[in-house]
Amino acid sequence: MQNLRFLTKDQISYIEKNYKLPFYVYSESELQKNVEDFKNFPSAFWHTTRFAMKANSNMNILKIFKNFWLKIDASSEYEVYRAISAWFYWKDIQISGQELSEDLEKLLNTWVYFVATSLNQLESIGKIKPGSEIWVRINPWLGSGAFTAISTGWTTSSFGIWHEYIPQIKEIAKKYGLKITKIHLHIWSENTPESWVNTANIWLEFVKEFDEVKILNMWGWFKMAIMPYEKTVDLQAVWNAVKEKIQDFYKKTWRKLHLELEPWKYMVINACNVLCRVVDIVDTWEKWYTFVRTNSWMTEMPRVSMYGVQEPIFTINNSKNTKKYVVVWHCCESGDIITCKLYDQEVIEERELPELFIWDILVIEATWAYNTSMSMKNYNSYPEAGEIMIYKDWTIKEIRKREKLEEIWRNEIY
Amino acid sequence: MQNLRFLTKDQISYIEKNYKLPFYVYSESELQKNVEDFKNFPSAFWHTTRFAMKANSNMNILKIFKNFWLKIDASSEYEVYRAISAWFYWKDIQISGQELSEDLEKLLNTWVYFVATSLNQLESIGKIKPGSEIWVRINPWLGSGAFTAISTGWTTSSFGIWHEYIPQIKEIAKKYGLKITKIHLHIWSENTPESWVNTANIWLEFVKEFDEVKILNMWGWFKMAIMPYEKTVDLQAVWNAVKEKIQDFYKKTWRKLHLELEPWKYMVINACNVLCRVVDIVDTWEKWYTFVRTNSWMTEMPRVSMYGVQEPIFTINNSKNTKKYVVVWHCCESGDIITCKLYDQEVIEERELPELFIWDILVIEATWAYNTSMSMKNYNSYPEAGEIMIYKDWTIKEIRKREKLEEIWRNEIY
Repeated sequence: MQNLRFLTKDQISYIEKNYKLPFYVYSESELQKNVEDFKNFPSAFWHTTRFAMKANSNMNILKIFKNFWLKIDASSEYEVYRAISAWFYWKDIQISGQELSEDLEKLLNTWVYFVATSLNQLESIGKIKPGSEIWVRINPWLGSGAFTAISTGWTTSSFGIWHEYIPQIKEIAKKYGLKITKIHLHIWSENTPESWVNTANIWLEFVKEFDEVKILNMWGWFKMAIMPYEKTVDLQAVWNAVKEKIQDFYKKTWRKLHLELEPWKYMVINACNVLCRVVDIVDTWEKWYTFVRTNSWMTEMPRVSMYGVQEPIFTINNSKNTKKYVVVWHCCESGDIITCKLYDQEVIEERELPELFIWDILVIEATWAYNTSMSMKNYNSYPEAGEIMIYKDWTIKEIRKREKLEEIWRNEIY
Repeated sequence: MQNLRFLTKDQISYIEKNYKLPFYVYSESELQKNVEDFKNFPSAFWHTTRFAMKANSNMNILKIFKNFWLKIDASSEYEVYRAISAWFYWKDIQISGQELSEDLEKLLNTWVYFVATSLNQLESIGKIKPGSEIWVRINPWLGSGAFTAISTGWTTSSFGIWHEYIPQIKEIAKKYGLKITKIHLHIWSENTPESWVNTANIWLEFVKEFDEVKILNMWGWFKMAIMPYEKTVDLQAVWNAVKEKIQDFYKKTWRKLHLELEPWKYMVINACNVLCRVVDIVDTWEKWYTFVRTNSWMTEMPRVSMYGVQEPIFTINNSKNTKKYVVVWHCCESGDIITCKLYDQEVIEERELPELFIWDILVIEATWAYNTSMSMKNYNSYPEAGEIMIYKDWTIKEIRKREKLEEIWRNEIY
């Protein structure tokens, strides 16, 4: 058996015996380990870690984050209500959606914080609740991503208020007496201290424009290695550099800036596996490809088909030989492949794996974020897979049941 | 107001007043029109039209197809049970999945037809039910698609049994006394009579190998124009050419071959619209882009983010001026755009539209297939949108209710 990040052979046997695969399996310890990296990292005037719950919204997971004293970023009013159901306080939730909540008036009467992501949002909130405290998200024209689809903070991005509209932000704030106390920058940064310092410089320029700003939210791409060819960011190096910048700013302006972080990949990505089975092996003759078909994929893990990312695949058997495979999935859909060329989901790629047989279990690692929450649920009428948590005390608990078939059409009227 | 394919201003007003957008809106008449094109087209020895229900599985829609005397292609055992719930007969359903049903034994005792898509499937079915009638799917090494992700029937495709394994198919069939009566070819053809004749030639070569084959299933890409730059296939020309081939075959062999078709795009794609609203308009300064944010998208229509296809966008207002927009959606996700470059979902593209204002209604056409069924349901915790059917007698009926928020976490255990 290959070396897995957190699952033991006994745990796999237990899950296999008691649940119908595929299943998501989470590790509370892995989660805690990474959360602590963020709790302990250097900051000039303390910092807050905020979890963007769109990545994974199971209530049991939200409760774990609450126990770790994390706060919440919600992308819609629905996420706000979900976080509340998981016992978060209103005041620990911010909402920063593309779409202004239809319950705006109601939500403005709670303690939830609004991040205005457009001038229109700022104006609408000002009208309903003049004089209130508000946060704004600025598109800084700065960002570098592996590819355009995930690059934010650029001319091609609709997220946040374009930085050249700062005079308009000030004007609206003045008109309604809004107090802007936090600035959000949503960038897709390189993972070097230099690039983060570069970001921090631009960021502090924006802070100078707003006298009441005391918090900086720096969403970013804190790289966590998933595949062997990847490298995890050196958090300490990055943040020591940023810390220095914030201290310099303090020396010049006497303003103490609190830092807010919204990591996702680093903190969580490796804390979940999907367990599934090999259901068939076919080939297009020896001279072409051998395909492993499994009982999972775009119905559980959509990020490959969407973005062409690669994920680690482990086999649970005693094969000594290896073989080259293209791993595909159970949906009748050409995009339903996992071993694609990096960032090119339309091109298949072979992966060398221990020789596989029908009914073998596969463990797909790094499936924590944007999988349950973004999956193409019920395609080909496959019921939604369940979720299991392995807690720190080694108890194994089902945290979401596998869906029943009839539930898929429960809202149809006939 | 721009010219819509089937919605009237009154219908839009009615829907807007009575339902919370976004909503899918179907037209029974549009559906019927296209189904009839298939019923009436030329075939040598009659033909059957089969609907691949993974494209859209709402029970009300399945029932309409049943009334049109269509048969069903199911991609999983779950789809079989869903078709049965919509009153289809077992004998009118074929199952042709990548994954062999876990209820195999049970299903083999019904009248459902199995299409073996691998040698392993053929063997498993033979073991349980020797002597039965079975259909096989062959990968003919033939296909041309707009891009690789949707190309099937090639060396890079795991669908069907590779054509060079015909001797092995025969061997397994002989071993278990299986009677192979239908051959499936799953190709992605050009839409010219020449290319279909080319396909038919290869196809008839396969038929010669199996004495008992009497049905040919030719799944294919019968092009229906969606965007103004597209051209609908000339069905009559294509099928007159194929008809001739089948007649020639009869003259030489005295074998009458029944034709089976599995169209999807042609038959259904234009029979549905998504109605949604403009919720915000932002820009990255005059010199860059203007973005229209709507209250819909990857949560309802995933095909753009997945494959970079383009869809028609109509506006419901009285604007006289036009303007160039990038249309984006409500999810906090960079891939959540609609106006992308054709087949390149990572590159945004502007579209000239009548000038838009917040709260305007947008009608996105051509959203029938692979939208409700393949959508990233509940991303950002948005409840699943409902569905409405406009029947031939002009009645407007809700055929699926909008999901309630609490339903999203109904299976979580906490």
